[in-house]
Amino acid sequence: MNKITKRGEDFSQWYQDIISVADLAEYSIVKGSMIIKPYGYAIWEQIQSELNSMIKAKGVENMYFPLLIPMSLLNREAEHVEGFAPEVATVTHAGGEKLEDPYVIRPTSETIMYETFKDWIHTYRDLPLKINQWANVVRWEKRTKLFLRTTEFLWQEGHTVHAKPEEADAFAKEMLEVYRTLAEEVMAIPVLTGQKSESERFAGADKTYTIEAMMQDGKALQAGTSHNLGDHFAKAFNITYTNSDNQQEYAYQTSWGVSTRIIGGLIMTHSDDNGLVLPPNIAPIQVVIAALLGKDEDSNNNILKISKEIQTSLLNKGIRVKLDDTDLRIGEKFFKWEQKGVPLRIEVGARELAENKVGLFRRDLMTKESINLTEIETEIEKLLIIIQDTLFNRAKDYRKSRTTEVETWEDFQKYIELEYFVIASYDGTKETEAKIKELTKATTRCMPFDLNQDNLGKCIYTGNEAKARFVFAKSY
Amino acid sequence: MNKITKRGEDFSQWYQDIISVADLAEYSIVKGSMIIKPYGYAIWEQIQSELNSMIKAKGVENMYFPLLIPMSLLNREAEHVEGFAPEVATVTHAGGEKLEDPYVIRPTSETIMYETFKDWIHTYRDLPLKINQWANVVRWEKRTKLFLRTTEFLWQEGHTVHAKPEEADAFAKEMLEVYRTLAEEVMAIPVLTGQKSESERFAGADKTYTIEAMMQDGKALQAGTSHNLGDHFAKAFNITYTNSDNQQEYAYQTSWGVSTRIIGGLIMTHSDDNGLVLPPNIAPIQVVIAALLGKDEDSNNNILKISKEIQTSLLNKGIRVKLDDTDLRIGEKFFKWEQKGVPLRIEVGARELAENKVGLFRRDLMTKESINLTEIETEIEKLLIIIQDTLFNRAKDYRKSRTTEVETWEDFQKYIELEYFVIASYDGTKETEAKIKELTKATTRCMPFDLNQDNLGKCIYTGNEAKARFVFAKSY
Repeated sequence: MNKITKRGEDFSQWYQDIISVADLAEYSIVKGSMIIKPYGYAIWEQIQSELNSMIKAKGVENMYFPLLIPMSLLNREAEHVEGFAPEVATVTHAGGEKLEDPYVIRPTSETIMYETFKDWIHTYRDLPLKINQWANVVRWEKRTKLFLRTTEFLWQEGHTVHAKPEEADAFAKEMLEVYRTLAEEVMAIPVLTGQKSESERFAGADKTYTIEAMMQDGKALQAGTSHNLGDHFAKAFNITYTNSDNQQEYAYQTSWGVSTRIIGGLIMTHSDDNGLVLPPNIAPIQVVIAALLGKDEDSNNNILKISKEIQTSLLNKGIRVKLDDTDLRIGEKFFKWEQKGVPLRIEVGARELAENKVGLFRRDLMTKESINLTEIETEIEKLLIIIQDTLFNRAKDYRKSRTTEVETWEDFQKYIELEYFVIASYDGTKETEAKIKELTKATTRCMPFDLNQDNLGKCIYTGNEAKARFVFAKSY
Repeated sequence: MNKITKRGEDFSQWYQDIISVADLAEYSIVKGSMIIKPYGYAIWEQIQSELNSMIKAKGVENMYFPLLIPMSLLNREAEHVEGFAPEVATVTHAGGEKLEDPYVIRPTSETIMYETFKDWIHTYRDLPLKINQWANVVRWEKRTKLFLRTTEFLWQEGHTVHAKPEEADAFAKEMLEVYRTLAEEVMAIPVLTGQKSESERFAGADKTYTIEAMMQDGKALQAGTSHNLGDHFAKAFNITYTNSDNQQEYAYQTSWGVSTRIIGGLIMTHSDDNGLVLPPNIAPIQVVIAALLGKDEDSNNNILKISKEIQTSLLNKGIRVKLDDTDLRIGEKFFKWEQKGVPLRIEVGARELAENKVGLFRRDLMTKESINLTEIETEIEKLLIIIQDTLFNRAKDYRKSRTTEVETWEDFQKYIELEYFVIASYDGTKETEAKIKELTKATTRCMPFDLNQDNLGKCIYTGNEAKARFVFAKSY
């Protein structure tokens, strides 16, 4: 019970063990769908709260569209239906009757939204239109994994409409920057920001921008995407507007989403063989106060009194703090909150209190020190910032240590086999990407915005003239 | 355009017009489902925020269960399936294949949750279990109406498990009190709190408690329910625990929900022939500052400067304020925010500014006064409280004026025809309720907790000995 497989032995089992011991989620009776348990859902609520504020700050308004999409509507945009039709769940009967036009459960909401957008947009004064919804979606995946790939998941999907193509492109990039901020500054997950190749982009998009993170096994996780849809959907759904010269024009669109999948990325970036590790900025509980109760009633009363005083003073500082005054044995109490990844633990016990001190345990380093009662507030505030930085830098250093640029096909294969992020140039064709994937299981993750595209040289695989330099990796 | 039918002429059309002019929601391409537009969704977000805090304060934790329920699972509790089977939407195909056991889209989540609860509960130490989820549900209704009855709606559903039947009953009542607080103190909707008759209770419950509101046409709206499920589901799903005497016992459960339907109740309680009316405690925008811009640039700059100062000072007080500095014509600007039901409008114009004054318009009374710039903060804070009270008392007086107790079947028919809340005694049988409904369209709304049950006399319809005194009414 509560045993965690070591990362080095079986990374996949380790991942499942972490979710289990931290009590984040479990599989349900529904194929590939999960039950998000209170502690896992609390992490999602933190993500929602942070991301929702950032989205609203971009002038985007929340609203809600129906769960069901008429099958005929999904079929409207050719690439889009090709991408999603194989994995939809279909409602054929409702209210005791067979439906003439079946519904699919939304795998994403472009079609149902854009069918309506066309009625809301008449002139350039109605643009830009910027909306977002927090919703559940269903994609019938064959192989599923908690958080990373489930038949149902929770997400936000934002959709905007613009007058000009360059405005749409700029906004898609602006939202990618929001996602980078969420990943790096809130969740301490370092990400590459860049553009997807043609093979990897969203079904129906002109350009897909992505944030890509490296997990502790060296594999990549796509943690959020933002699409410049060009006028593909505008043409399919007839979204036009009258410009200031009184001429009819097609509009340009974006869509962008982050889902519960990012919680999988959070787990696989920071956690260790002792359990979950949470960065302070996303942790539902930032500090746990462990009251180390013994058999002496007077001493226990003093421990509880001091514990509550500490709790109140931290709450007043806006710190998310929990007091554990249960009668769990001390070892179990420590173990529980370590496994749940709480960044800091304050240990309030008789021995240290006699010297006006408490123990302070850092989950990221698994280290303990003694501090004076008078120093708690300032020390905690300081440490929460330090832990956040430490986790981010540790993950960034790790990624650096497993990233390399290669010039030869031999090195490419070698480093992909070692599960590195491999920087290489290729001829830019879908065929080459497909062949590389077939031979090595590696895909293009992205063309990072900050990666030099000069002197591309030859394609790593075909030897033809290279067209672009990408990061390749195996991925989730 | 933007015309509102008068309540007295066609109440149902008036309701639709209010939703349309305030831009709260519209029908979608999906039969009976609605698109909740930003302003309508902002009201839902206010409701969520207020209710979520109250739910958490009861020690309930949020989590998330799957959308889909295996058909075979729904069938487990006999009364429950009878109640919901006729209105479910059924997924028969997914991922390109026909499913062996089809899924239904949750109409409510008792079955999918309780199938799992049985694995989480072992001993009395695991109780009480208290969870809640914010989710979408689907019920394939034949006749639909925006907010009030839609094939998909948003809600929260809370579910608790207790060791003893009396604990479950007490908790179901506690949550009803939370709903009463939301309705009366936040949304200014006066409600009757009481118990449903056997015919009207939830499919599978022992007792259903309800909050019932009167709309401005005299009809009742059930705005939230809380169910004492007894051990019905525990027996169907084998939810047992070992008590402190080491004996196996069935657990006792509750479930309770409030949905987007309550927004329909909000509209029909307060709004008038000029548009939506929102109580300050629920209004997404509590105060709008209308900058009355003219042609003089210096004057406009001064108007904008003062407007922004007012905005900042109100924001600092925690008031939800919006500055309208658009170039809409003054009449249109007033009209727009009146139709959207913003409780207070501050009018900042050159003429009054010359005397260091601004106009202050109350939406509830449609009255305007002039106040000194120095008085704004205190006046606004005071008025927001007064408007909240005024709306609540107005609605409560209205309900009182349309509620009567009757002794004869003649009077019963007469007052039901006049769309009153009619208090009457009856013999407590389902048959009598059914007959009364058939003859008058009135149903038992509830047996209010505070209604005297002494000297019941004869049944209003059969003349047999009466068993209970209820409120009867036509309803939504």
